[in-house]
Amino acid sequence: MSACEFESLEKSLESHLPEAELVEVKRILFGKETKKLDLPACAVEAASERDFELKGYKFDAAQEQLRPPRNIRVGLIQHHIVLPTDAPILDQISAMHSRIGEMVEVAATCGVNIVCFQETWTMPFAFCTREKEPWTEFAESAEEGNTTRFCQELAKKYNMVIVSPILEREELHGTLWNTAVVISNSGNMLGKSRKNHIPRIGDFNESTYYMEGNTGHTVFQTQFGKIAVNICYGRHHPLNWFMYSMNGAEIIFNPSATVGALSEPMWPIEARNAAIANHCFTCAINRVGTEHFKSEFTSGDGKKAHHDFGHFYGSSYVAAPDGSRTPGLSRTRDGLLVVEMDLNLNRQISDKWSFKMTGRYAEYAEELAKVVQHDFKPKIVKE
Amino acid sequence: MSACEFESLEKSLESHLPEAELVEVKRILFGKETKKLDLPACAVEAASERDFELKGYKFDAAQEQLRPPRNIRVGLIQHHIVLPTDAPILDQISAMHSRIGEMVEVAATCGVNIVCFQETWTMPFAFCTREKEPWTEFAESAEEGNTTRFCQELAKKYNMVIVSPILEREELHGTLWNTAVVISNSGNMLGKSRKNHIPRIGDFNESTYYMEGNTGHTVFQTQFGKIAVNICYGRHHPLNWFMYSMNGAEIIFNPSATVGALSEPMWPIEARNAAIANHCFTCAINRVGTEHFKSEFTSGDGKKAHHDFGHFYGSSYVAAPDGSRTPGLSRTRDGLLVVEMDLNLNRQISDKWSFKMTGRYAEYAEELAKVVQHDFKPKIVKE
Repeated sequence: MSACEFESLEKSLESHLPEAELVEVKRILFGKETKKLDLPACAVEAASERDFELKGYKFDAAQEQLRPPRNIRVGLIQHHIVLPTDAPILDQISAMHSRIGEMVEVAATCGVNIVCFQETWTMPFAFCTREKEPWTEFAESAEEGNTTRFCQELAKKYNMVIVSPILEREELHGTLWNTAVVISNSGNMLGKSRKNHIPRIGDFNESTYYMEGNTGHTVFQTQFGKIAVNICYGRHHPLNWFMYSMNGAEIIFNPSATVGALSEPMWPIEARNAAIANHCFTCAINRVGTEHFKSEFTSGDGKKAHHDFGHFYGSSYVAAPDGSRTPGLSRTRDGLLVVEMDLNLNRQISDKWSFKMTGRYAEYAEELAKVVQHDFKPKIVKE
Repeated sequence: MSACEFESLEKSLESHLPEAELVEVKRILFGKETKKLDLPACAVEAASERDFELKGYKFDAAQEQLRPPRNIRVGLIQHHIVLPTDAPILDQISAMHSRIGEMVEVAATCGVNIVCFQETWTMPFAFCTREKEPWTEFAESAEEGNTTRFCQELAKKYNMVIVSPILEREELHGTLWNTAVVISNSGNMLGKSRKNHIPRIGDFNESTYYMEGNTGHTVFQTQFGKIAVNICYGRHHPLNWFMYSMNGAEIIFNPSATVGALSEPMWPIEARNAAIANHCFTCAINRVGTEHFKSEFTSGDGKKAHHDFGHFYGSSYVAAPDGSRTPGLSRTRDGLLVVEMDLNLNRQISDKWSFKMTGRYAEYAEELAKVVQHDFKPKIVKE
């Protein structure tokens, strides 16, 4: 079995483990079980017709006396590119718009309040090629671009907050950015959040295309809760998650594009650790499939030039502040993950574990200020 | 099957999954496979006679041209308390010394260079009772106590660095601390590292007994590498791991005492995330068994008073900077985990992933300094 054929860890466990052991294994691996969410039959049918996986789960919180539950539904969408990477650019973008359009329609039927797409969802993840053309032509204005307009229409139509991560072109300064556009359910653009940490690894030195983001750790107050977007490589940086949380984020989305050989064993760890450490929900989204490029390219690993860099393994999931998580979407198929969560859980877990109160942040602020000096002397004891 | 009977996640997977799927499941769950380490037959026999689990694994690194490999072996020891909690204190401590003595002897036979014991290893984890007596009588001087002397003898005898986490009494100020004593393989005490983050959760408000540590993020230069000790609850705080790493730690030990209901699903996540995020090795150690106390106590959860607070689930493991990890020790048995690692792997992974260079720490230092002000205004965008 090749790594890109293996469909899902959860399916494998459920097919083979005896029931009593499965309960223990799932408890240790995934924490308190997330309930399955009943989704409308018409949504299930539509997903099947449109050939994507549809899964629904629910995180519960305790009933409080003074606050009503704050149940909301998020949708995570993972998908293949639709047309070959050498098709005309406008056709590629339009095809992706259509695909997302039909998936978001199902999300709406499922009552999703906030949906998030994968990183640079309108294009192949072509940054491995190091070619500027034609890939930079996929870049659009965050405020005025067709993709933002498209999402604004969806947002209004379905009363849904949309997080739309694109390759952004800022005409004013002639700069490109890796940016998530956040659109309110009113259809208005709420703002944007740029990728804070840029990889220089394997096939990707993305600073060939765009540099570290300058939007800091902005949090967006939506009708359905306070959200933030930590794009892709930022998930490896605990301080990045932390700072979104310190600015009040209740849900942090992590739209990503990452392949197996590089990162798969880290995938279930990092977003989930962030949910635990910061008393919030995190949503990790990865694209699926293998993308082929016409020009060959090398990967700085001594190997021969090739036309693709591996299989995007999907496996999108949601993690909760109590350490539990949903199963992942498929490693191979397009999918929509619908997750209902009571946002009251964040404060309940925070009141229980108290990481924010036992964190000694003032002391870390002092220590970090020293550590970043070029003449910092580490505290090392020798015999 | 009750949670305290379930022996091991890894055993369950290995017993039931077909070979081809097992390979994929293990790759996703544990990363690149750790090789089994051949251990001397006499060690295997001794472990069997002394009724503890003995497992050995090895993390490889690439061969470099300018640096020879830096292969070292660490030992992680998890164990039950030996005598009942109401036995005379000196007897309890002596029995624990004997048990550790016979386990360390096997570690020496296995070529272990650095061994670390579990949190407050000389005593039951009695802090749930909130009784000061007799538990504070287990506290000893870090410099002059019998347990430190005992460890110094072992260290000299076996040429082994010993990390010995105890309840420390500092006579000078009349204070107690939760402290790891670090003893060089010469037998000299290198120093001590106090628990930085103190839980106030469930059965444990440990600040009844000791407060937040004042030893900062000290790193100890040993003959076998630079080590640090992040005690128990500090594993929930990413900044704590981070700061040990910024001070140069190559291996961070996490001696712990934690029970299933509270933390088990977080256990495989946090130390491993720290190894990934900080390009270092982390070693998570938890005690095993259920400890019964004569006086009943309540747990602040509305339930009836009881005499124990649950099953310590062991499951000690080592995580590597490439995201891989060893299988865990048993959830139910005493055990010694021997892990060989080439410390060159840290720099190799750091050169590959470059989190320290893409981390933007200077900007976080500024941001954190603002965040900790009482009048901090979070960056929240509204419509």
